[in-house]
Amino acid sequence: MKAIQATPELKLQVILGAVALLPRFGNLEEILERDGFKVDAKFYMIVEGETPVTMSKSAGLGIIDLTMIFYNLAPDMIVAVGDRFDVMAPVLAATYMNIPIAHTMGGERSGTVDENIRHAITKLSHLHFPANEDARDRIIKMGEDPSKVFNVGCPRMDYVLECLDQMKKEVAYDYSDFFAKHGGVGGCFDLSKEKFLLVSQHPVTTEYGSNRQYIEEILHALNKFKMPTIMIWPNADAGSFEISRGVRVFRETYRPEWLHLFINLPIEAYLRLMRLCSCMIGNSSSAIREGEVIGVPAVNIGTRQNMRLKGKNVVDVASSRDEIYQAIVRQMESGFYETEYLYGNGSAGKKIAKIISETNITTTQKINFY
Amino acid sequence: MKAIQATPELKLQVILGAVALLPRFGNLEEILERDGFKVDAKFYMIVEGETPVTMSKSAGLGIIDLTMIFYNLAPDMIVAVGDRFDVMAPVLAATYMNIPIAHTMGGERSGTVDENIRHAITKLSHLHFPANEDARDRIIKMGEDPSKVFNVGCPRMDYVLECLDQMKKEVAYDYSDFFAKHGGVGGCFDLSKEKFLLVSQHPVTTEYGSNRQYIEEILHALNKFKMPTIMIWPNADAGSFEISRGVRVFRETYRPEWLHLFINLPIEAYLRLMRLCSCMIGNSSSAIREGEVIGVPAVNIGTRQNMRLKGKNVVDVASSRDEIYQAIVRQMESGFYETEYLYGNGSAGKKIAKIISETNITTTQKINFY
Amino acid sequence: MKAIQATPELKLQVILGAVALLPRFGNLEEILERDGFKVDAKFYMIVEGETPVTMSKSAGLGIIDLTMIFYNLAPDMIVAVGDRFDVMAPVLAATYMNIPIAHTMGGERSGTVDENIRHAITKLSHLHFPANEDARDRIIKMGEDPSKVFNVGCPRMDYVLECLDQMKKEVAYDYSDFFAKHGGVGGCFDLSKEKFLLVSQHPVTTEYGSNRQYIEEILHALNKFKMPTIMIWPNADAGSFEISRGVRVFRETYRPEWLHLFINLPIEAYLRLMRLCSCMIGNSSSAIREGEVIGVPAVNIGTRQNMRLKGKNVVDVASSRDEIYQAIVRQMESGFYETEYLYGNGSAGKKIAKIISETNITTTQKINFY
Amino acid sequence: MKAIQATPELKLQVILGAVALLPRFGNLEEILERDGFKVDAKFYMIVEGETPVTMSKSAGLGIIDLTMIFYNLAPDMIVAVGDRFDVMAPVLAATYMNIPIAHTMGGERSGTVDENIRHAITKLSHLHFPANEDARDRIIKMGEDPSKVFNVGCPRMDYVLECLDQMKKEVAYDYSDFFAKHGGVGGCFDLSKEKFLLVSQHPVTTEYGSNRQYIEEILHALNKFKMPTIMIWPNADAGSFEISRGVRVFRETYRPEWLHLFINLPIEAYLRLMRLCSCMIGNSSSAIREGEVIGVPAVNIGTRQNMRLKGKNVVDVASSRDEIYQAIVRQMESGFYETEYLYGNGSAGKKIAKIISETNITTTQKINFY
Repeated sequence: MKAIQATPELKLQVILGAVALLPRFGNLEEILERDGFKVDAKFYMIVEGETPVTMSKSAGLGIIDLTMIFYNLAPDMIVAVGDRFDVMAPVLAATYMNIPIAHTMGGERSGTVDENIRHAITKLSHLHFPANEDARDRIIKMGEDPSKVFNVGCPRMDYVLECLDQMKKEVAYDYSDFFAKHGGVGGCFDLSKEKFLLVSQHPVTTEYGSNRQYIEEILHALNKFKMPTIMIWPNADAGSFEISRGVRVFRETYRPEWLHLFINLPIEAYLRLMRLCSCMIGNSSSAIREGEVIGVPAVNIGTRQNMRLKGKNVVDVASSRDEIYQAIVRQMESGFYETEYLYGNGSAGKKIAKIISETNITTTQKINFY
Repeated sequence: MKAIQATPELKLQVILGAVALLPRFGNLEEILERDGFKVDAKFYMIVEGETPVTMSKSAGLGIIDLTMIFYNLAPDMIVAVGDRFDVMAPVLAATYMNIPIAHTMGGERSGTVDENIRHAITKLSHLHFPANEDARDRIIKMGEDPSKVFNVGCPRMDYVLECLDQMKKEVAYDYSDFFAKHGGVGGCFDLSKEKFLLVSQHPVTTEYGSNRQYIEEILHALNKFKMPTIMIWPNADAGSFEISRGVRVFRETYRPEWLHLFINLPIEAYLRLMRLCSCMIGNSSSAIREGEVIGVPAVNIGTRQNMRLKGKNVVDVASSRDEIYQAIVRQMESGFYETEYLYGNGSAGKKIAKIISETNITTTQKINFY
Repeated sequence: MKAIQATPELKLQVILGAVALLPRFGNLEEILERDGFKVDAKFYMIVEGETPVTMSKSAGLGIIDLTMIFYNLAPDMIVAVGDRFDVMAPVLAATYMNIPIAHTMGGERSGTVDENIRHAITKLSHLHFPANEDARDRIIKMGEDPSKVFNVGCPRMDYVLECLDQMKKEVAYDYSDFFAKHGGVGGCFDLSKEKFLLVSQHPVTTEYGSNRQYIEEILHALNKFKMPTIMIWPNADAGSFEISRGVRVFRETYRPEWLHLFINLPIEAYLRLMRLCSCMIGNSSSAIREGEVIGVPAVNIGTRQNMRLKGKNVVDVASSRDEIYQAIVRQMESGFYETEYLYGNGSAGKKIAKIISETNITTTQKINFY
Repeated sequence: MKAIQATPELKLQVILGAVALLPRFGNLEEILERDGFKVDAKFYMIVEGETPVTMSKSAGLGIIDLTMIFYNLAPDMIVAVGDRFDVMAPVLAATYMNIPIAHTMGGERSGTVDENIRHAITKLSHLHFPANEDARDRIIKMGEDPSKVFNVGCPRMDYVLECLDQMKKEVAYDYSDFFAKHGGVGGCFDLSKEKFLLVSQHPVTTEYGSNRQYIEEILHALNKFKMPTIMIWPNADAGSFEISRGVRVFRETYRPEWLHLFINLPIEAYLRLMRLCSCMIGNSSSAIREGEVIGVPAVNIGTRQNMRLKGKNVVDVASSRDEIYQAIVRQMESGFYETEYLYGNGSAGKKIAKIISETNITTTQKINFY
């Protein structure tokens, strides 16, 4: 967004909606305004419930809302980011309304419904900004015009690398009020002195009904260590309630003093934890994307990141407490890994803005190469 | 549907909605009941207006409705047909709700937004039933598992071929009450004696705003012939109103006695006209699919059927009155063509039912081959 | 709207939506622009089908859309007009969003669901502009604060009276191209010389399923006269399709050369017909509101206008062909009636704009007097 | 529901939706099944956000969903309960779909948008079941047919009185695991020995933007007592987030050990607290309805219960910390009050079931008496 704003040929319009608008995921609007962005339109589309049913209804409602917004803002192009279920709403509204679509982070592989949605968005998009050459190849293999597919890196990594650079320059950082500042529930500890684990487990939407079992396996593996552990609350995908129910019952039953839960953390705070922790555990893509740059040893669990391009810092295991336990032991022994840059080197934003400003795209006829 | 009903391992559920439920497109519910099908659920999703805005809102509303319907009917699989904009609604609802998707007529090429939607549906589907080998190859090239892609032919052709067989056996058919029976407006003539043209022109959604010009070019080309002409009303896609406005103004201005308009025709009646007419004109896929079997000389206009696999009976021209005029002259001279079977030989339904009954599909992890 | 625009203290915002946006009901947007109004927002909410199901879904969709529109336009007050089913959408959205509501034409009585919706809107409104003293009394009896209820007359009558004044000043009017100009189907005749009947019959939504019978009774009554008759197409309420189906079958069966159908007429053209015709027939409120000023003899059929305050020009009958026939005979004998002004004298708009500009309304607490 | 189930002439259909379906408000589906009810349909309609915008969108979505549900279940009548914003959804869907509406708890007075919605529902309903004679009079004054308005008492009180009877018969009740059983956050104490306050403050939707101030006034009043206090989380109306934000900041700032928060309590547990506490504080209707029977001294704050019929146990104050403080002092001095029965004596359900089974209602024409 900063790069687009800095490009004179482009005019940025910002639409804030879906989970990004919900206070329980942080006040993104405030952050946007602080960073100098004007929000042109807002829309609430998340139907409460966190089930496959509400995920589907939310997408439908999002299409209805975005139709009205696109009609009013009349953008010449939309930039769709990634593969979350809700990204389908702007992509489909733009498709029907003859608005060209640029897509970032296409062509990757993973588990869950994200995989299918990511590739479907590719087939609806006119301009592609994959995060690496592997993803670029896959997009072209799927029949997209190679002259419209640009390996630019992942724009999320631009900001991550900027933050990490900043942190490296810091002489010292005071962690003493970290828990007070970011709230949450459960035991606290001295982040600057004690070794700890970092857990982030999201629902596997395509295995709705099994997510409680998965989180229980993780919690029981962690219970063998009983070392300080920070867990991030799951996102709002279908199955979220299974995870939170599993965590709640575990907390009531075992009273784990070693476990602290944060609803949500600013990305800077989260990156600090990644740099400090002894091992990351769960199925978040952050262990893979941000993780490979930080080199944090990570245990990736289950199918959610299946086939995702991963650095050496990641070990894959099934959702079994024994496998998880063993992998954590091994990863803590190995320690931090060399930095890798599989998802870009921090210049994605500028490249994207430049290409959009130089490329002429219409929806009249999208050429498929097959 | 008949083939599924006849397969003991399968249980058919019928959902009737979108334009299929609207009286102005014929009473499909009555036809279904007459043919022995029970409608399990009905939903109205078409937001009136026939613009890109209403097309998009309709899809959003359809997703909301189908979520409720799928939740109640709990199907083990849905069969999505073709590439109309509204097919995206059941496909997305099923995607979010972890219901496997079988897709017919995927892998083909054409113009308009249909092209993008068709391939996006392919990337969301688990079982593919393309209509020919060319389409099968394209689906596999897009990364789908070859063991899940079956060239079965187009199920619509099953019924078409059945009708045509029936008609070939008829000794004679009485066309005297054809106009009285099917209504419409404009001049009538003796179908069994007079040469006539058959026109079916639908909106090019991706060229919304130009559709009036396209129909005017056609009407002015036809006006040079002034021979009896039957025109079918356009479908309800965005831009439909441009076409109907163009036709209305032309009728008021030129009072063309030679032009008869039908809102809608049963498929049998339409096939009869295809067999009788001197030339088909417009951008309907029927000239290509049904047309190649009948061998009817056809003039395909503009981009809507771009790159579609076509038989020898079709000549492509741009939306220019001169080109259209010349092509009609040539095609009338050439007369009927040899039958081709690029879209199947009439056994698609049976093959599809058999494969579905024998294939085990889950949504847990769809394998993409790239 | 003109009066609000002319009031310096007020700023007009115009939202165009529902049936007013549909081309088949005329191009209202063009008319608004011609008359110097800027449309601030547009929304399509009508789900095609014209059944109770689609009426209900349309209202739900309208609420969703208007929420977004009100959020963007942030009006200090909305003016809701009358009692159509779709007016509930802006009224409810405003209710939830704490936007004060002014309501015109409240407090009247009629049949169908309109009656219930009209009174419900009254209980949700903060400022009331009934069309006569009878309606004002009823609003106050329902518990509304008398200081917020103003008998201003019906704003629709402002325009009607202006048009009629204009027509009275005309030396002559050329009706020769009336049918050519306004289109429609069926027989034409010389409006300036021949006696004719004017029919406007809308669906009775609360008697959905009986509307075909009602129109058949009317058509058979008219068939006894076989005198030139102009019929206006029904509005889009649930049951509309029953009426149009009834008309279509009657036309096919009896080929009534005496019957001409218009889809829709500009109000000026419609008023001309009211002044020229021998008798109005049907259940349109225009026979009552505009009719009492023109003095046109009218036969009001069925329950749709039940208990509506009516002038002497109106005779009520049940939906029976015999009663309708007899009433038409009597009304044609009686001829035109004296003008009455039960619905205002043409100054409603100015009064409304003045009161709104002088009244301070908040939604914090609406006082009910019971 | 039990009374309807026990009436042979009636067949109960249960639709579970809106907040009743959300896990964070308890598992109502489980409770219904335990109590022998079958849920015929479920729908998620709550759009996350808890603002006026999402309240409005939720209602729109609810209408769309309920249209589908009513279409499938085809009820002969719906029973709408009370005046929450979401009750408008079934009432409007039924209105459009010609389904008769019975309404409980109409005719009362209160603050917020509930007041307007309650009376609007009355004008859309065909059968009225007010909770007392005062409410019955008001419904009749609003123009409803007296023969359709039955003072039966409040059905919620049936269950409350049953619970209270049960509790009176108990020899002793073990409160030792109350906090463990019902969760929540904050300090715990011995319910059987210590005096405590009970607080339930919900958003005033019509004063959206002021709710944080209101809760702060309450918390600062309570902070003067520093006696054990149990607070119930606010409901999901617009403004809920203002309250929870206010509570969170207060907790972080003042670390009130005396304050315990429950997200939600089963009604039995809540009634126990009402019987044990020294004073109830806030703006919940439970202080008025359940409270008058229990005789609990209550301080009702602000406009939410404005003009509601109240027993002697309730004192009204403005949202000012001083007034609140003084009123709590006075109410604790006064102690418990005599039981009153302004909202019925426990037989509402049976009366309602009997009247519905004996009354013939159609929607063809609702008679308004004005």
